[in-house]
Amino acid sequence: MNQSDSADHNDTLTSGISAPPMPGSAMTADIASQPKVYAHFVDSQGAHVAQVAAAIAQNRPKSIVFVARGTSAHAALYGAYLAEVRLGLRASIAAPSSITLYGARHEFADCLVVGVSQSGGSPDIDQVLQAAGASGAQTLAITNNSDSALAHTAHHHIDLQAGKELAVAATKTYTSELLALLLLIEGIRGRDPQVDAFVADLPELARTVLDDPAPGQLASRYRFASQMITTGRGLGYPTARETALKLMETSYLPVLAFSGADLLHGPLAMVDSQLPILAFMGNGPGGAAMVEVAQRLSQQQADLVTIGPKGTDAAVHALATPDVEERFSPLLDVLPMQQLALSMALQRGQNPDAPRGLQKVTKTV
Amino acid sequence: MNQSDSADHNDTLTSGISAPPMPGSAMTADIASQPKVYAHFVDSQGAHVAQVAAAIAQNRPKSIVFVARGTSAHAALYGAYLAEVRLGLRASIAAPSSITLYGARHEFADCLVVGVSQSGGSPDIDQVLQAAGASGAQTLAITNNSDSALAHTAHHHIDLQAGKELAVAATKTYTSELLALLLLIEGIRGRDPQVDAFVADLPELARTVLDDPAPGQLASRYRFASQMITTGRGLGYPTARETALKLMETSYLPVLAFSGADLLHGPLAMVDSQLPILAFMGNGPGGAAMVEVAQRLSQQQADLVTIGPKGTDAAVHALATPDVEERFSPLLDVLPMQQLALSMALQRGQNPDAPRGLQKVTKTV
Repeated sequence: MNQSDSADHNDTLTSGISAPPMPGSAMTADIASQPKVYAHFVDSQGAHVAQVAAAIAQNRPKSIVFVARGTSAHAALYGAYLAEVRLGLRASIAAPSSITLYGARHEFADCLVVGVSQSGGSPDIDQVLQAAGASGAQTLAITNNSDSALAHTAHHHIDLQAGKELAVAATKTYTSELLALLLLIEGIRGRDPQVDAFVADLPELARTVLDDPAPGQLASRYRFASQMITTGRGLGYPTARETALKLMETSYLPVLAFSGADLLHGPLAMVDSQLPILAFMGNGPGGAAMVEVAQRLSQQQADLVTIGPKGTDAAVHALATPDVEERFSPLLDVLPMQQLALSMALQRGQNPDAPRGLQKVTKTV
Repeated sequence: MNQSDSADHNDTLTSGISAPPMPGSAMTADIASQPKVYAHFVDSQGAHVAQVAAAIAQNRPKSIVFVARGTSAHAALYGAYLAEVRLGLRASIAAPSSITLYGARHEFADCLVVGVSQSGGSPDIDQVLQAAGASGAQTLAITNNSDSALAHTAHHHIDLQAGKELAVAATKTYTSELLALLLLIEGIRGRDPQVDAFVADLPELARTVLDDPAPGQLASRYRFASQMITTGRGLGYPTARETALKLMETSYLPVLAFSGADLLHGPLAMVDSQLPILAFMGNGPGGAAMVEVAQRLSQQQADLVTIGPKGTDAAVHALATPDVEERFSPLLDVLPMQQLALSMALQRGQNPDAPRGLQKVTKTV
C-alpha cells in the first residue's frame, strides 16, 4: 500500500465495532468526577475513618511508616508531612526493597504502618505490611479495592470508594487518598472544627477550581517546552511530586520535582529562561519558605508560575487557588495540574488515557 | 567596540594576574584524588570510626534517622539502605521542614540521628540534630569540617579529612561520606573480614576504575542528549540519584532518577529511543531485580547503558566496574559517572568547576 492509498473509512462505521473513545475522554471524566468523589467519601466513609482513627489513637503509635509506589507514594508523602506537623510523630516512607529484595526483618513495634495503593495489588507493599504486622505494628491499608490482598492483610482498611478509574494515569484515586489521610490524621489528633468546615466546603471548592480555564492556557504556553521543574516545600512538596509524575506519564515530558531546599543545593544551576518552573505556594510556613526560592529562580531568569492562594512578584504568572490553610491546599492545588497534564498531552498529540508501556495495575516486588 | 576589535591578548600576560584556571581543572583534580582520599580516611580515621561504632552499638538504637541535603542526602540514602539490610534496623531520611519550618517536636528517644553535610554549615540540619539530641537521641555528624556548627552540635563527629574540595560539584566528599558510612554501619554490626579486605583494596580498585576511558566515550555519545534517566534498586539506587544530580549541576541536563520499581509505575511511559538510561546493577539482590526493569526498558527501545559488574542483554552498552559485593559497589560505580559529568559539561561548553547560580556552601532553613 503506498501513501496515496487510504482505508475505506466506512469500514469502521459498518463493522459493528463502536468507534474508539476520544483520546482523553477517560481522564477528562475522572478529573471532572472529583467533587462528587470527595462528597461521596465523606458521606459513606467519614464515620468509618473516624473509628479507625480512634482505634489508632488508643494504641498511640510512636511513629508512622508509609509504604507506597508511584502516585500513591505522593499521597503518602502528604500523609507523612501532615503526621509530623499535626501529630508531632516521626513519619517516614519505607523503601520496600530492604524487606522484599534483601530479606531484612525490622522491628516495627510501636509503629503504625500504612500501605497506600489504589489497586491494593502490589506485592511489595503487601509484603511489607505482612512483615510489619508480624513484628507488632498496627497496620492500615488505604485502597480503592476492598477485595484486594492489601485490604485483607492490614488490621484496618479504608476503602476510597472512588469508583473505577477509567484512565491509566491516577487522578481521582490520588485526591481521595489525600482526603482519607487528612481525615485519618486529623481524626487521630482529635476533632477540629476547621477540618469539618473545610471538608463541608471541599466539593464546591473543587468545582470552582476545575471551572477555571487557566490550565488550558498554561498548556498552550508549554506546548513546546522540552523540560520542566516542579517545586514546593513542606506540605506543598507532595503536589510538586505528583504534578511532575502526571506530566511525565501523559505528555512524556521530563519533569524534575524538587523540594525548594534541595533545588538550591545543585539543580539550580540548570535553571534558565527556557526552563518552566511550577512552584506550589500554600498559605503557611511551606509557602512562605518558597518566597526566597522563587527569588533565586527569578534571578536565573526562570519562567516561574506559582500555584496557590498567594503569588510572588518573582513569578511571570500566578494560578490562584482558594485561600485555605496550607494543610488543605494539596486537595485543591493538584486539580489544575491534572488538567494541565491532560491538555498538554492532547496538544502534543498523545492519548493521556493510555500512556504507552503502562498498565493500570503495576506489580513490583 | 565592534566585532573586529579584539583585546590585546598581552594584557592578561602582563597584568600580574595569573591566567584563569582551565575549566574543569578543579573537578578533574578532585576526582583524581579519590583513591588517596580513601586511603587517608582509613588510615587516619578508621580507628576513631570504630570507636564511634562501638559506642553506638552499646546503646543499640531502635532506628536510624538521617538528615542531609543535596549530594550528602544521596550518601545518607546509601547509609539508610545499608543500615536496613546489614543491621536490620529501620532507617529513614528526615524531612527537616517539619521541624525547621513548622516547629514540630518529635520523639527521638532510642534513635540514632545522623547529620551528613560536607560543610557542616547548613542551619536546617543543625537544627534537626539539636532537636533530636534534646529529645534523647544519640547524634552523629559526618562532615568535612571539624570546626563546623554540626560537628559541635552532635555527640559524635566523624571528620572526612578529604581536604578542601576545589570544584563546587561535590565528588570526593561524596565518596568519603560513603566510606565513612560503610565503616560506621559495618562497625556497629561487628568486625567483618570482607569489609577489611575490600577497604584494603579500595584505593587500588578506585584507581583502576578511574583509568578506564569509557566515560569520555559515553560523554561523546550523550553530547546532544536533551534528557536522561538514571535508575537502580536497593543499594544501587543512591548511585542513580547522585549521578543524576552531578549531570544536572555540571551539564545543565535534566536527569530523572528513579528506583527501578517506581520507574515502572508511570515514568516508563516517557521512555523511547531518544532517552538515554543509565542503570546501576550491582552483584546482589538490587542488581538482580533490575534485570526485569532493563527488559521492560528495552521493549520501549530505550538507549540503555548498564554500570556495574554484571551487564544484561537488554543494554546497548555495559560499563564494567569491579565485581565486588553489592554493598561495596556504590564506592566504585559513581566514579565513572563523575567523569561522565565532567566530560559532558566540557563537551557542552560549560565549566563544571563553577556551575552558574551555585555556591559551595548552600544554607537552607
